[in-house]
Order: sequence, then structure tokens, then C-alpha cells
Amino acid sequence: MTTIPDEFKDLFTGKHFAHIATIQPDGSPQVSPVWVALEGDLVVFNSAEGRQKVKNLDRDTRVALSIHDQENPYRYIQVRGKVVEKTQEGAVQHIDQLAKRYLGLDEYPGHQPGDVRVIYKIQPERVQTQG
Amino acid sequence: MTTIPDEFKDLFTGKHFAHIATIQPDGSPQVSPVWVALEGDLVVFNSAEGRQKVKNLDRDTRVALSIHDQENPYRYIQVRGKVVEKTQEGAVQHIDQLAKRYLGLDEYPGHQPGDVRVIYKIQPERVQTQG
Repeated sequence: MTTIPDEFKDLFTGKHFAHIATIQPDGSPQVSPVWVALEGDLVVFNSAEGRQKVKNLDRDTRVALSIHDQENPYRYIQVRGKVVEKTQEGAVQHIDQLAKRYLGLDEYPGHQPGDVRVIYKIQPERVQTQG
Repeated sequence: MTTIPDEFKDLFTGKHFAHIATIQPDGSPQVSPVWVALEGDLVVFNSAEGRQKVKNLDRDTRVALSIHDQENPYRYIQVRGKVVEKTQEGAVQHIDQLAKRYLGLDEYPGHQPGDVRVIYKIQPERVQTQG
């Protein structure tokens, strides 16, 4: 089982941003920045139903992400893998926890009426690091 | 013709990093951080023959990239487009210029014997910004 090296786990616990790449319906790539975390050996991020990356991942679970250290951009990790779980359970609390970590706020400031938050969990299959 | 909005062009001239997504042979995404610049309305970056993203782009010119402002990560741009030119001409000088901008060095410190540098030029087709 591919895991995130211990010496790069800080990229998933500090204020660093993952650029998540998914596959569009026509097979072309899409990439956007997200907050990111680890849950055991799984990479997790939070999104909302209806977003492009969510639609893409519901059709094709293959995903790639790269994170550069916000303080030293020449230190980075690249991960390729697959979504192994998608859940709405606890997803509102989860985005609030991420807002606490990234913004120091008790509640995610981007909540919109009608938003259905989702957590994606990614099993890493290939990991490369530098720095 | 899709262009980069003037108010986001600084993301291509400062010390910000583009996360470039390409398509693997099996159709899955790959993403990695690179230095980035603008040449007119084209997004340009520099790589070397043999790299995974180069092999991918030689087979499938469709590309996506996202750049967050290193000082304010909640300000970012996402670009989707296609490679319209690949050239080795001037590519060594070009990576040295990028090293000057990003690192303040006269010469790119990563030159390896046998490296064949290449410049890729991307025509933006879809641009989204935030912040």
C-alpha cells in the first residue's frame, strides 16, 4: 500500500494548498486548488455537489494532486491515486474543521444555502517528493 | 480568443507556481509544479525531454493549470487549453531567465549534462479566476 512519507505529512496539516487534477468528460484535465488533509493513509478533501471536480470524480475516480510547501515552494509532493470513498456524512463539520486550521475561523465562511458538502478520500497509488 | 485577465497577469510575472496537469497514457491525470510565464496571450513553461509531463504533452496537447497567489492563496487562476507550440530554440536561455526571476540567479542551477530543454506554449481556452 502506497503511503505518504512521514517527512512530508506536514504538507497535509499546515496551511498548504493541494492542486487537484481530475478528468473532464472529454478526457482533458482540470485542476484547481483545495484545502487538504490526511485521514490515516488516505488524502482527503472537501467539496460540494455540483462542482466541476465533483462531477468529474463521480464519473472517473482517477485523481492527481500536487502540494508545494507554502514556505519553501521547492519542497513538494505529487500524488496519483483513486477516490475510494465519497461521503456527505460529517462533511459540514469537516469543512468547518478545515476552516479552523486554514483560516482560524470556527465556521467555514463559504457556506451557501443549498450547498451539499462532500468529503472525498483518495488512496495514493504513486507518490513523488522533492526537497 | 481567450486571454489572461490583466488583473491576474501578475501571477505569471511574480514568484508564483503553476501546477500543470497533463494526461497519462492510461487517461488518468498527472500534476506537478512548474515556473510559468506569459508570452503575449500564451502561457509558457520550460521543461526537459524525457519528463513525464513532456511525454504526456507530446501525445495529448490538452493541459490545465492553476496558480495561487503565493502571498494570498485565496486569489487564484485556473486555465485550460492546448499546447500550440513546443520548441527547443532558446529554451536554455529561457530557463536561465526564469531562474533569474524566481531565484535571483544568473543561471538555472538544475542544468544536467545531456538535458534537452524545451519551451511549451499554451493557448488558453477557458479561464476562471477567484479573489
